[in-house]
Amino acid sequence: MTIEHVQQELRAFVAERDWAQFHSPENLAKSISIEAAELLEEFQWGEPGDPQNVRDELADVLTYCLLLAERIGADPIEIVRSKLAKTRAKYPADTARGRSAKYDQL
Amino acid sequence: MTIEHVQQELRAFVAERDWAQFHSPENLAKSISIEAAELLEEFQWGEPGDPQNVRDELADVLTYCLLLAERIGADPIEIVRSKLAKTRAKYPADTARGRSAKYDQL
Amino acid sequence: MTIEHVQQELRAFVAERDWAQFHSPENLAKSISIEAAELLEEFQWGEPGDPQNVRDELADVLTYCLLLAERIGADPIEIVRSKLAKTRAKYPADTARGRSAKYDQL
Amino acid sequence: MTIEHVQQELRAFVAERDWAQFHSPENLAKSISIEAAELLEEFQWGEPGDPQNVRDELADVLTYCLLLAERIGADPIEIVRSKLAKTRAKYPADTARGRSAKYDQL
Repeated sequence: MTIEHVQQELRAFVAERDWAQFHSPENLAKSISIEAAELLEEFQWGEPGDPQNVRDELADVLTYCLLLAERIGADPIEIVRSKLAKTRAKYPADTARGRSAKYDQL
Repeated sequence: MTIEHVQQELRAFVAERDWAQFHSPENLAKSISIEAAELLEEFQWGEPGDPQNVRDELADVLTYCLLLAERIGADPIEIVRSKLAKTRAKYPADTARGRSAKYDQL
Repeated sequence: MTIEHVQQELRAFVAERDWAQFHSPENLAKSISIEAAELLEEFQWGEPGDPQNVRDELADVLTYCLLLAERIGADPIEIVRSKLAKTRAKYPADTARGRSAKYDQL
Repeated sequence: MTIEHVQQELRAFVAERDWAQFHSPENLAKSISIEAAELLEEFQWGEPGDPQNVRDELADVLTYCLLLAERIGADPIEIVRSKLAKTRAKYPADTARGRSAKYDQL
């Protein structure tokens, strides 16, 4: 099962429900934030969240990310790799090793 | 290029910087919310965001999602499909068609 | 200095810049999420954030909350007290004492 | 009713439930993000949210903001005014009038 298969399933899911009309980039961006906060809620008081809930909430974030990628015509794998190349340049291994500081404070 | 390849690249990127120590599930969940808000910021005042910025910010959310999936031993594609099956049951095509209401208000 | 004075200052600040046109309830709700994530970023990797940054980011969240309250005609103090009354009923002191569980899991 | 009165009520509410143990600055920062997203959810699909729900969710964000202010020893009104002074300097009325651009793009 590849990411293209999942995207195809999501497309069919959305089409069957006629939901594309709600999926403006802005609405999808809001939805990603909303689902990200539901994932965070599993960790609200610091204790480990329920493993299945964490998976389900993470899946919701990923789903909306895939829908937004589709909507703006971006290949999810390609944009992650392209951003990773930029991050590599901002955080060279030698200076960033073992540090969580922001690149402008390294 | 498959999602497994990207995950392998991310693993190497993190290992070279010795950053796994910062990547507790909770810290990654926070990071997903933080990056989701940076994506949302592109749409803060309603106008269309810069297309390249939107891609980069979406890539950041996806990256942390992949890191969290890795950290909790979840297959990102599998959890999206598994959650989609649950959502299909909660939102049957016939009752949900063309409506953005929550499942308990359909 | 009361909260009404601050609201008056915020009103003047917005009016001088002709920014009310951007302050739809939806845009303000997005802004609150965006600023909340900037506050969260101070705690991203678990270490204590810079105290002054925490104050400034908390102030940003509060500012947009006051602007939204103003925009929807809500008294910030009144709505906090009104919600507190509901929360008291959902979380009776006896059953909720010392527990962080959600009300439906107490 | 002043903001100090509400803060006193919140203190009593927390003390009766012995909840201060959960209210680390980090947990409160997470809670603010979580509640901010619940507020945003009222606007997820663009349509106007239910007015009472919007008030209740805004109240939740404000409540956690007041708890965090208390926890870090900050006066909510003072920090809003202090931040407003900084924002005034970053966004002079003349250059910022009628524009939603960030200060570094004005």
